[in-house]
Amino acid sequence: MLCIRPQNRRPKYELDYKAALSGQSVQLSRIMGPNDANIVGNVHGGIILKMIEEAGCIVSTRHCNTQNGDRCVAALVRVEKTEFLSPVFIGEVTHVTAEITYTSKHSLEVQVHVMAENILTGAKKLANKAALWYVPFSLQNVEKIMDVPPIKYAAAEQEEEGKKRYEAQKLERMETKARTEEVVPPLPDPEDHPKERHTVGFSQSSLIHLVGPSDCTLHDYVQGGVTMKLMDEVAGIVAARHCSTNIVTASVDAINFHRKIKKGCVVTVTGRLTFVSNKSMEIEVFVDAASLVEAEKKKYRAVSAFFTFISLDKYNRAQTVPPIKFDGEEELRRAEEGEARYLQRKEKRLAERERQSAAAQS
Amino acid sequence: MLCIRPQNRRPKYELDYKAALSGQSVQLSRIMGPNDANIVGNVHGGIILKMIEEAGCIVSTRHCNTQNGDRCVAALVRVEKTEFLSPVFIGEVTHVTAEITYTSKHSLEVQVHVMAENILTGAKKLANKAALWYVPFSLQNVEKIMDVPPIKYAAAEQEEEGKKRYEAQKLERMETKARTEEVVPPLPDPEDHPKERHTVGFSQSSLIHLVGPSDCTLHDYVQGGVTMKLMDEVAGIVAARHCSTNIVTASVDAINFHRKIKKGCVVTVTGRLTFVSNKSMEIEVFVDAASLVEAEKKKYRAVSAFFTFISLDKYNRAQTVPPIKFDGEEELRRAEEGEARYLQRKEKRLAERERQSAAAQS
Amino acid sequence: MLCIRPQNRRPKYELDYKAALSGQSVQLSRIMGPNDANIVGNVHGGIILKMIEEAGCIVSTRHCNTQNGDRCVAALVRVEKTEFLSPVFIGEVTHVTAEITYTSKHSLEVQVHVMAENILTGAKKLANKAALWYVPFSLQNVEKIMDVPPIKYAAAEQEEEGKKRYEAQKLERMETKARTEEVVPPLPDPEDHPKERHTVGFSQSSLIHLVGPSDCTLHDYVQGGVTMKLMDEVAGIVAARHCSTNIVTASVDAINFHRKIKKGCVVTVTGRLTFVSNKSMEIEVFVDAASLVEAEKKKYRAVSAFFTFISLDKYNRAQTVPPIKFDGEEELRRAEEGEARYLQRKEKRLAERERQSAAAQS
Repeated sequence: MLCIRPQNRRPKYELDYKAALSGQSVQLSRIMGPNDANIVGNVHGGIILKMIEEAGCIVSTRHCNTQNGDRCVAALVRVEKTEFLSPVFIGEVTHVTAEITYTSKHSLEVQVHVMAENILTGAKKLANKAALWYVPFSLQNVEKIMDVPPIKYAAAEQEEEGKKRYEAQKLERMETKARTEEVVPPLPDPEDHPKERHTVGFSQSSLIHLVGPSDCTLHDYVQGGVTMKLMDEVAGIVAARHCSTNIVTASVDAINFHRKIKKGCVVTVTGRLTFVSNKSMEIEVFVDAASLVEAEKKKYRAVSAFFTFISLDKYNRAQTVPPIKFDGEEELRRAEEGEARYLQRKEKRLAERERQSAAAQS
Repeated sequence: MLCIRPQNRRPKYELDYKAALSGQSVQLSRIMGPNDANIVGNVHGGIILKMIEEAGCIVSTRHCNTQNGDRCVAALVRVEKTEFLSPVFIGEVTHVTAEITYTSKHSLEVQVHVMAENILTGAKKLANKAALWYVPFSLQNVEKIMDVPPIKYAAAEQEEEGKKRYEAQKLERMETKARTEEVVPPLPDPEDHPKERHTVGFSQSSLIHLVGPSDCTLHDYVQGGVTMKLMDEVAGIVAARHCSTNIVTASVDAINFHRKIKKGCVVTVTGRLTFVSNKSMEIEVFVDAASLVEAEKKKYRAVSAFFTFISLDKYNRAQTVPPIKFDGEEELRRAEEGEARYLQRKEKRLAERERQSAAAQS
Repeated sequence: MLCIRPQNRRPKYELDYKAALSGQSVQLSRIMGPNDANIVGNVHGGIILKMIEEAGCIVSTRHCNTQNGDRCVAALVRVEKTEFLSPVFIGEVTHVTAEITYTSKHSLEVQVHVMAENILTGAKKLANKAALWYVPFSLQNVEKIMDVPPIKYAAAEQEEEGKKRYEAQKLERMETKARTEEVVPPLPDPEDHPKERHTVGFSQSSLIHLVGPSDCTLHDYVQGGVTMKLMDEVAGIVAARHCSTNIVTASVDAINFHRKIKKGCVVTVTGRLTFVSNKSMEIEVFVDAASLVEAEKKKYRAVSAFFTFISLDKYNRAQTVPPIKFDGEEELRRAEEGEARYLQRKEKRLAERERQSAAAQS
């Protein structure tokens, strides 16, 4: 899932790049420094996710303010499954291009491409592709959802495909919303005794973070990208604890942001291993939030998601991951569900490649 | 213990300030930004502690390299008990002055003053005073402790007083070292079920942090100030969870840094409430470290310390703290020990004030 | 000197923007957060200078590596005088476009435009224009200067104009180099007694900074933009102390970077007021560096420059600045020189406007 980029993707990107100059798109670029990477030089996936979301927020907030009425800020409500196609290294320049590709009455789809450029060799590679959904909220009244001005499509076909993606994600968002509301969130296992290596308890990790001003949007709610960066950080520590090697983010399943997190909250981010295949680890990450100062202080589940990490050898090649030593029915059940997701991802990836190679031949 | 600054402290500072221009001292200044403070604008104690340690490290590393032999870096081995005398706010400029005040064969004492200046009104206040002990380690061989070039004293009396402080802290460091080596550290309580408010379990908090390059010295070991900042962060969250108000660091008991933490380690920082008086909370903080990648991966206790926090009302005045709901013998025993430390601190503070007012009158 | 943007500058920018997609240019964009600004929301000039230099470094390093031979990194050797044309605020998106406009055998000129976009209103304004000179140094041997591949010019006229700029800056760089080498740098006045308001001594300020990994290029030398950001920070503190109001950077005179600063050095940045006009303050800033650990530890003057700041009222309009209370011949002499520079800047600005309005009419 890493490093191999089908040749036919290149033309698609070239097109987007041109589009990047219209009002419906934006490009962020930044050179990667030591603070963006682990000690062997791999840039953290969370840094890339944060840049992706920043670009998405800029392009959709800008678009939603091209009309009369309240000024508004676009809030991230969903990120589609995303894959890290090539690792990025310290010293490379990352170019993140975001473009609005669909608008419904109250939401926008933004597609983002991340290119990493080695300015010493001139080599460029596609590092990530992502699709994000935003909803504009009024700055005057944060509960009020604004209308989204429609975009123009080059062809009717584009609009139809966008509509299909819109309907599909809407359905899934409603489903997961119902699920999170109905289910009382299972609390992560306690870390109450020294654990045997390769058990789930051994690698389980948590961090807490006090939400400060630079984590927030103009609404004083946490920027979606900040949450994703914290999630990747915890998942990375779980993965490194499990296999004691250099690890990198390979993919992130779709994430729905049902509940916002306000400035001044404490967020608790917990990651636990659910399933390992021969060369990958699936880690479930929970984000719970609670206000420190406000009246309603009950902790609530703000987000959860599945991250897939792989372990790299010293030549940056994926290597075998130690199997999990399971402890109890619950862990086995989660692993079975994890395996089903793993197989589904694999299938989708193969289908996508076939589709692309068919498109390339036609 | 906050905000009230006896007038007779001022002259002491003026003297140190002049010394700040000699080779044995250094001054750091920085304007406080939103990321340095909580949402009501109080600068975190941990930010001040980090600046204090940075100044101490610079002045002692510089001094230890004024001789022939291996180049070396001074590592923090101990911070004496320190009190936060006045709160610092966003927009103020913090001036941190560090001066070498004693040298033994292998260690240095650095005294640090922190002044906060409101550059709009010109008002200045003493925010903190601290004393730190450093030991120089060779850059060629990090296990090798270097000799410290002696400083010149203005009067024989100064050297003698310094020697007394040196002997006292040496004794305490040896004692705590023996204690940490002999005792298997008690593991913090599990966070395994929703807890009742005002219990110890309710406010207990942990964070994990992956040590990155900007956390480290030239030796690739964690800068002492970075560790103290993380400790203050966790302690602050414990305090805020307990009393749901704006809280600030009032003081930190002496901290001994017996074991270093290397780049690439994961540190787990845990804080738990031990004792509350009418207007203060004592929080015990543990720092445990484990390498993610190296052979020896056993988690070890790197540092532990007691922080005292107070709760502020909207006029920045100390207010009453809710009592702890204890659960079990162990928690009661810890509270008793906490109370003893609380009374001892109070006594010391009174003795110090009397000593100063006597000095002012003579 | 602020906020006024002649309409005829716009078309110039549009052209550059297109060029931004060629290999010879790059665009960085970033949303401005609370940490980039002062407490009333104005983005610090130093943040803009740092982004300008990052863009310049990327585009020139990329260009110099488009040939065979050693891989190299471009180091900033000079920034031409630059003016802040409009203030930038928190929440705005800054777009920095850098383009190579001239190449000599061993150096490149990069022209940079900074646009600030309010994504809520759609308003865009030109915030800054700058010209930077870079020299490529080999990564294998940092003393070795590499050849610069020539660029293609659209017209012979462009090359000629570039050559004139090249000759002019070369002369000035040689002159200032001779000056800094010959003159023993006068040490800044000691800050040894409380000063009367509006004297030079009252507002004089210093900060020191230990150069860490994230301040550096791939060569382990300080990134030019990091130095400029520190200089702006100190100058801003001087200006705020002098007039106790909201202040912003109005312009920076040309800066020559004659001596590099290595990782692990301590830099001392000092600013002092030299001259005030009715509505502006000129602040001279010195950057002195010294290694903490290396053999050659003598402090050396790495950079110096003149910053001009203005004081803003609550409507963001320039307001009158208090006059300086001078103390001694030396300060008066500096003020006279400052006045001469002030008049020269004013003259140049007028000439530039006339030239542009003439161009617009033709």
